[in-house]
Amino acid sequence: MPISMYRASVPVFLQILPCMSAILDKTATHAAAKKIEEKVFLEARLYPDMFPLTRQVQIAADFAKGCVARLAGVEPPKFPDTESSLEELKARIAKTIAFIKEFKPSQIDGSEERDISLQMGGQTRTFKGENYLISVVLPNFFFHTTTTYAILRHNGIELGKQDFLRPPGA
Amino acid sequence: MPISMYRASVPVFLQILPCMSAILDKTATHAAAKKIEEKVFLEARLYPDMFPLTRQVQIAADFAKGCVARLAGVEPPKFPDTESSLEELKARIAKTIAFIKEFKPSQIDGSEERDISLQMGGQTRTFKGENYLISVVLPNFFFHTTTTYAILRHNGIELGKQDFLRPPGA
Repeated sequence: MPISMYRASVPVFLQILPCMSAILDKTATHAAAKKIEEKVFLEARLYPDMFPLTRQVQIAADFAKGCVARLAGVEPPKFPDTESSLEELKARIAKTIAFIKEFKPSQIDGSEERDISLQMGGQTRTFKGENYLISVVLPNFFFHTTTTYAILRHNGIELGKQDFLRPPGA
Repeated sequence: MPISMYRASVPVFLQILPCMSAILDKTATHAAAKKIEEKVFLEARLYPDMFPLTRQVQIAADFAKGCVARLAGVEPPKFPDTESSLEELKARIAKTIAFIKEFKPSQIDGSEERDISLQMGGQTRTFKGENYLISVVLPNFFFHTTTTYAILRHNGIELGKQDFLRPPGA
């Protein structure tokens, strides 16, 4: 049976987002042990004109939330970008996971040909659901989650690729 | 029509691998302009115990090659990890793209339930084709391609997310 739109979206987000939460936990533990302000990690970036950690997490979570909502034909809720602690960033992820989990396969499946319109760089672009998921959402979601990992790794948090790939308890 | 196994694999690799080649081109141009040895970039890493650029590219390309071969029920060819220049790394990517392009949708489609056995950490793990693609290959492929981008960005190559997402000419 070919891959359903649900299977190619929701479980991917539910694999990786809990990993993001767990690496923020490790970051909090590290920060406390080394007596480093959390802010140092939240504002860390790999280059001056790249987004810092906080923004990477927000964007990654929003790609997941927006994808599931749009595929289901629902307006994505707006989550304000106001997080200023690791705990708040984890709450953002938790809220995103809770939102995604509300959707049933029947709401997402069959959205391959659904028209999805997005504001991108000041213009509206329209994609078919399948193309939106495979060519836009997944690359962007993984881009921002991997960059989150890379920023923390670069800042000395002890992580390995399994922390990125395998949710705690899985 | 649900997503075919071909659609969820080959076009993803053919979207991102040419981007990798193009960012290596930009790296070569930058290195030449600044009179920096290419080796500096090839050996760059984000943390002492992370893989350097060369290895990131090799692994990313191998996830793509291995995925397409295994889904089609073909033994993946071995490409030796001997690249020591940006040009050679680009050739590795080109060889990978050429290999992937040989496959027709009919060879990949229907592989959802195919048993895929992998050597991971000294043990054999078996996945169904769909799970292998969605839970193993795509996260790993994007992990190593994004890390490639992140290493170069961190080293001052002028790149933006579009360089990661959109192949030249697309």
